[in-house]
Amino acid sequence: MSFQHKHLLGIETLSKEDILTILETAESFLEISTREVKKVPTLRGKTIINLFFEPSTRTISSFELAAKRLSADIVNFSRQTSSVIKGETLKDTVLNLEAMQSDAIIIRHSCPGVPHYISTFCRSPVINAGDGAHEHPTQALLDAFTINQEKKKLDGLKVLIVGDILHSRVARSNIFLLNKLGARIVCVGPPPLLPLEFAKLGVELDYNFDRAIEGADVVMMLRIQLERQQRNYFPSLREYREVFSLTRKRFRRAKKNAIIMHPGPINRGIEISTDLADSTKSVILRQVENGIAVRMAVLYLLLGGKERETTD
Amino acid sequence: MSFQHKHLLGIETLSKEDILTILETAESFLEISTREVKKVPTLRGKTIINLFFEPSTRTISSFELAAKRLSADIVNFSRQTSSVIKGETLKDTVLNLEAMQSDAIIIRHSCPGVPHYISTFCRSPVINAGDGAHEHPTQALLDAFTINQEKKKLDGLKVLIVGDILHSRVARSNIFLLNKLGARIVCVGPPPLLPLEFAKLGVELDYNFDRAIEGADVVMMLRIQLERQQRNYFPSLREYREVFSLTRKRFRRAKKNAIIMHPGPINRGIEISTDLADSTKSVILRQVENGIAVRMAVLYLLLGGKERETTD
Amino acid sequence: MSFQHKHLLGIETLSKEDILTILETAESFLEISTREVKKVPTLRGKTIINLFFEPSTRTISSFELAAKRLSADIVNFSRQTSSVIKGETLKDTVLNLEAMQSDAIIIRHSCPGVPHYISTFCRSPVINAGDGAHEHPTQALLDAFTINQEKKKLDGLKVLIVGDILHSRVARSNIFLLNKLGARIVCVGPPPLLPLEFAKLGVELDYNFDRAIEGADVVMMLRIQLERQQRNYFPSLREYREVFSLTRKRFRRAKKNAIIMHPGPINRGIEISTDLADSTKSVILRQVENGIAVRMAVLYLLLGGKERETTD
Repeated sequence: MSFQHKHLLGIETLSKEDILTILETAESFLEISTREVKKVPTLRGKTIINLFFEPSTRTISSFELAAKRLSADIVNFSRQTSSVIKGETLKDTVLNLEAMQSDAIIIRHSCPGVPHYISTFCRSPVINAGDGAHEHPTQALLDAFTINQEKKKLDGLKVLIVGDILHSRVARSNIFLLNKLGARIVCVGPPPLLPLEFAKLGVELDYNFDRAIEGADVVMMLRIQLERQQRNYFPSLREYREVFSLTRKRFRRAKKNAIIMHPGPINRGIEISTDLADSTKSVILRQVENGIAVRMAVLYLLLGGKERETTD
Repeated sequence: MSFQHKHLLGIETLSKEDILTILETAESFLEISTREVKKVPTLRGKTIINLFFEPSTRTISSFELAAKRLSADIVNFSRQTSSVIKGETLKDTVLNLEAMQSDAIIIRHSCPGVPHYISTFCRSPVINAGDGAHEHPTQALLDAFTINQEKKKLDGLKVLIVGDILHSRVARSNIFLLNKLGARIVCVGPPPLLPLEFAKLGVELDYNFDRAIEGADVVMMLRIQLERQQRNYFPSLREYREVFSLTRKRFRRAKKNAIIMHPGPINRGIEISTDLADSTKSVILRQVENGIAVRMAVLYLLLGGKERETTD
Repeated sequence: MSFQHKHLLGIETLSKEDILTILETAESFLEISTREVKKVPTLRGKTIINLFFEPSTRTISSFELAAKRLSADIVNFSRQTSSVIKGETLKDTVLNLEAMQSDAIIIRHSCPGVPHYISTFCRSPVINAGDGAHEHPTQALLDAFTINQEKKKLDGLKVLIVGDILHSRVARSNIFLLNKLGARIVCVGPPPLLPLEFAKLGVELDYNFDRAIEGADVVMMLRIQLERQQRNYFPSLREYREVFSLTRKRFRRAKKNAIIMHPGPINRGIEISTDLADSTKSVILRQVENGIAVRMAVLYLLLGGKERETTD
């Protein structure tokens, strides 16, 4: 099992084999977090940088715990700290961190393409933890991992992605990944948040949630992110909820054993009804749990993989 | 030595034996922090979450150091970070942290009862690090530990608690604890900050500091916390100080070997005169030192105790 | 090799031998950060406090990584956290941290003399990470280390320090150090930022950059720190740049193998032209890299040195 990429910038540039390698590696890391001593010495003495220019709680701490459970040293730079280095170019900031002999830089930034830009001059692996509305590859990987855990396959499944598709890096990364692994993807949302260009990515578009959900295996709800919207894309939250919220009534149209996903944090009663979020159909917390295993796998493959191949 | 509780939510629900178990365990941990290498592998590979919705410096870092000296991994979520997850319910925040396989959640919140609420759905131990004006159990435990260190007993001692009793979680937890261990407690403060209901907790109330301090073994001064007061409870700081500040003259009325305590941070010249704070009678810094040993004991008993019993 | 000081408060009070001891120790630590596993157990179980009352990104993280690579536990207190303990005196804050059995306190403060003040009552070593416009000793040490790495000596070199000399703790610490090690120092800047008193420190003053740079071995550019200036010291940034920016044309007057230094973060196009900052003449990132080795050496000498001498 080998992974030939130096960085993880997005799903778009990965092959099906690359994705399967990550998912299989994550499988072996999942068990570690259930052990009495949930720590392995794999990345001992490595320095990992969390460089987050956008606020984050769960992604930054998921990477932090993934790094710690691999025994790496991790240093966090959040928006608060980074404002301190105002006046310095992003390139200089990154080169300075690299000069401290970092072994990987995990970056989140509001501008699409920043991780790719950084990778052009970085000595060490760059991991995209979300760049604007572009990609969020580890989220798509943990989503695929979770679907596979539940359905034992991805090929041929009908997966709905519902909500603000236009501004969602989660949606884009999931579309790239699920396409490569053979799922049938239907994007659902109000017309202004569901541009026709998305059809070119190999997905079906539907403005009618009730119709689209028929026979779905997976219903992936997106978070309404008012902070990302430049203008009003729907008349009111009440009307949005009426048409695009996942309710028990609506969910009955999906397959009997369909599962519900959400990247979190959830807005209860807005994109999803509270009882569904807490039901056995929801795998939302499982996604969080799997996130650590997937991120451990990514760190392992990018930082330690080659050595282990030679030494093991 | 065993501790049967899953959580540490407050002193009120602990038995005398529970308290003694914690204090005795802390005794054995006190020595670790004086070693050349002040670290034991007891909780290696455990993940502990510091979830602080109120600002804190000393309590959060005391827990952080306690966890690190037990070799656990600890992740801090402060008010700054938690504002990021606005819109998410507290329950969802906690369940998400648990999904990352946390082994304990240490929580501080301005609402009384939050730790108890969380414990109703948490898989892992919950430790109350202060909930509103309700309880702050580890503070009371470190206070008792310190008194016992100095006086070799708690039973029969006259302990004064002086200041804003009404808003003090430190006072409440200390009252519960000292009562269970047989001390005689006198609460002193201005009438609006010393409600008659407190008499039901088994303490004496006195508005006259000079009278109450006669024969005291321990004088515990509380911090004037203007931020917790909804309205003005005393006419001016100068008048408060006149009547309720611990001065050298006033302290002379206590027992000859009486000790002075304060949960910190102290307002020099307000609740306590500078010379007394720095005198040999003051055990304020000893309280801070003991705080780490007591928190190590609590973490050990809740997270690692049972295993050690079986393996040792 | 021994180091007799308990604290590192500044360069002014060090002997030439002290400085050489630190630089030689740093030499041996430089290699550790290039290892596959860049971590040694030297300071395992030690507690180090980063107490930063001024914002910092690179210095605080450089110390953090230095501590982690020596296996110490480090706890950060930044300005954000320290505002929480408002009302508490600085002395009480430090004594409280010490009561948690800290083994070293690394402090940055906007007031000159604060590290010295703290050292008068601290049990554990105090390291000055910058005190107002007074000293920044680890910066001068890493600068000397870098010059020596490039030039194999310091004695007899012509070193220019250019910019806001008046407000620069970096300049002051470098002046003390380079003087002790026999370099010829020329300070360059606009008259209001280059007071005549500096001549007493044993340096030459020159307001003419073009003249001063002739034959220079090292050109050390300072950062324009508008935040430190109480009033306008030069008419405009454009005019400053015209006269005191390091351009390729100006740099041609220096020695053929001259090197360019900067404490960072750099203002590209202001104190230094972008092409020079990125040229092979610039050792700016090397300074950052060496910073960790120098700080590891300082922590080792102050915290662990004596033991190693006896045990090794």
